[in-house]
Amino acid sequence: MEVQKETEKGSALSRRAARRDRELELRRLDAIAAASSVFAAKGFDGAQMAEIAAAAEISLASLYALFSGKEELYQEVVLAAGASVRRAVQEAVAAREDPRERLLAVIDSLFSCFEDDGNLLWIHARGPRSLPWKIRQSIGAQSVADFQQWNAWVADRVRDVQRDGGMAGLEADVVAAAILGAVSNTAGQWIESPDGRSLSELAAPVRALFRRVISNEETQ
Amino acid sequence: MEVQKETEKGSALSRRAARRDRELELRRLDAIAAASSVFAAKGFDGAQMAEIAAAAEISLASLYALFSGKEELYQEVVLAAGASVRRAVQEAVAAREDPRERLLAVIDSLFSCFEDDGNLLWIHARGPRSLPWKIRQSIGAQSVADFQQWNAWVADRVRDVQRDGGMAGLEADVVAAAILGAVSNTAGQWIESPDGRSLSELAAPVRALFRRVISNEETQ
Repeated sequence: MEVQKETEKGSALSRRAARRDRELELRRLDAIAAASSVFAAKGFDGAQMAEIAAAAEISLASLYALFSGKEELYQEVVLAAGASVRRAVQEAVAAREDPRERLLAVIDSLFSCFEDDGNLLWIHARGPRSLPWKIRQSIGAQSVADFQQWNAWVADRVRDVQRDGGMAGLEADVVAAAILGAVSNTAGQWIESPDGRSLSELAAPVRALFRRVISNEETQ
Repeated sequence: MEVQKETEKGSALSRRAARRDRELELRRLDAIAAASSVFAAKGFDGAQMAEIAAAAEISLASLYALFSGKEELYQEVVLAAGASVRRAVQEAVAAREDPRERLLAVIDSLFSCFEDDGNLLWIHARGPRSLPWKIRQSIGAQSVADFQQWNAWVADRVRDVQRDGGMAGLEADVVAAAILGAVSNTAGQWIESPDGRSLSELAAPVRALFRRVISNEETQ
């Protein structure tokens, strides 16, 4: 009886603890989402913790309880943005069968992501290499590693096409870097001077270029 | 006689003034070269004016007489790096006749530039979009404008190929963004994890990719 009471009490406590964990996690996600908008609008230097707390509708003290400071929050934003883009692209790729269509879906889905969430584009356009130097030393390492893994994942999609007889003689890593570089640069140019097209409309000309690389055999 | 004396005195003064201008210009170039190394090694935040002055072998006071501060010096370094890369590429392109070879020379010469001067790669890899936010507002504008003009110049080389019957149906600006993005991304990956090849050896696989885009006709 005593034991059961203890157990009930324990389970009530753990339910409360679990609820508290969930609340903390939600608050954390709100803070990251708010920080993402503020960093996208003002950059790392211009963003202020108080403004992020206000946007997340939490107190400044709560924000500092969740993150040691702006550096840690920025890291979380960059990592979350990268993870979110990769997840969306991987889902789009998984929905297709043909290896060539799977590779081209990388291009379309990247532009769709950027169109759906403007913050992702800003954060992506700055990229891991553009992290403020002093924070790059420690926190940049993770996002550089993520990016390398990401490039490797795209390169594997190139190899799928090669196993199917396409793009013989090309280096998969270089094709992947070219696809990601073409998307970043095209989207980055669009940020600086939007040309009247929507971001997802920019996918077509980039796709057309790589479709040509994919469809044709080596001629020299 | 009096007049002639005056003239001689004036011309001696102007020679001295001209000499002083030349000296100032040389000092300015030394400072930019020194700053380029320090920024490449330590980034914007980590670089210190005193260290740059020491590397340029001028006094800190002289450095501040030439540049209002680190922001202005950084801008000069970014602009000089961009100008130096563009000049080298344009010379390499001018040395060729065939429009396809001229376009492919953009790729080779970019990698050669980076190999010849490692600072250029670091500064290029960070690019205009990665300028610290608060300085980007004012000084970033020029380097963004330079980059757009640069992309437009490469797009004109694509149009030369199109006038010659190649790459029909592709958007010249997108092909240019893809070429520059592919080079940046490949070189950027190499900075993070050099794979044993030299930078100029990386030109071949990037060139192979775009040679395929150039040589083939649309298939769909």
